Amino acid sequence: QTGSSATPCASCKLLRRRCTRDCVFAPYFPPEDPHRFATVHRVFGASNVSKMLQELPAAQRADAVSSLVYEATARMRDPVYGCAGAISYLQQQVSQLQVQLAVAQAEILQRINHPSPMDDDDKAYSSLVMQNDLMSTLLLQEACLKKESLWT
Amino acid sequence: QTGSSATPCASCKLLRRRCTRDCVFAPYFPPEDPHRFATVHRVFGASNVSKMLQELPAAQRADAVSSLVYEATARMRDPVYGCAGAISYLQQQVSQLQVQLAVAQAEILQRINHPSPMDDDDKAYSSLVMQNDLMSTLLLQEACLKKESLWT
Repeated sequence: QTGSSATPCASCKLLRRRCTRDCVFAPYFPPEDPHRFATVHRVFGASNVSKMLQELPAAQRADAVSSLVYEATARMRDPVYGCAGAISYLQQQVSQLQVQLAVAQAEILQRINHPSPMDDDDKAYSSLVMQNDLMSTLLLQEACLKKESLWT
Repeated sequence: QTGSSATPCASCKLLRRRCTRDCVFAPYFPPEDPHRFATVHRVFGASNVSKMLQELPAAQRADAVSSLVYEATARMRDPVYGCAGAISYLQQQVSQLQVQLAVAQAEILQRINHPSPMDDDDKAYSSLVMQNDLMSTLLLQEACLKKESLWT
């Protein structure tokens, strides 16, 4: 079998075709990991993936394959929203953090301009801030867990 | 032409086939906007999109089409990273904001506890509080980054 490798790559094996030396899939879909190709094939289709790779310079193809596998995996996990669901969630998280940061920075400015010694009101307020701090830590932890659950 | 609509949907027009009453594409790809279907067809392929839609209940198909159009558009704009590029960028933004917020909250606590000019005991205590706070910020950041690195 001149021009074919001993073991076909995962793509050629799944597509039951000869794996030639110039196979566009072979460098990125080794036979040991058949699941990766099966996923991108199911979501994008082998011929689309092949076309997309051939339109890119060789140096960028490995990154393109990684991102295609990532997107296809997200689409299999969440057939309605796929990657777009994660983007929407992350955008919300960015907005919430920007608001929390603006509030905190405003409070710092106020305290710089009015650094009076603590009276009872201050102590009560201090306790409230501590509670808020605990709350935002909990929200942060929750956010990390949610973020995780989208992908795992 | 019994069973076909007067004007074929954007998908059937592009694929040059008869648009029947039960066409899975017709409700989401009206003839007025041929570009939307051309984009998903180019990235995912018509038969994959058809399969994905048929596997979903009708009520979720419009959202699935929107997210597929969104992802395909991102892939056309950025053929190497597509949607995954946006996710990676947003994850970095979230991590940075989380650190900035933790630092701001630490500063607020310090100003609450030490609103007046500091004596030596205050300085020692303040330094300890700041160190503890910095430590928990770093631990949190590390935890978030670890999770992030799983997906990028």
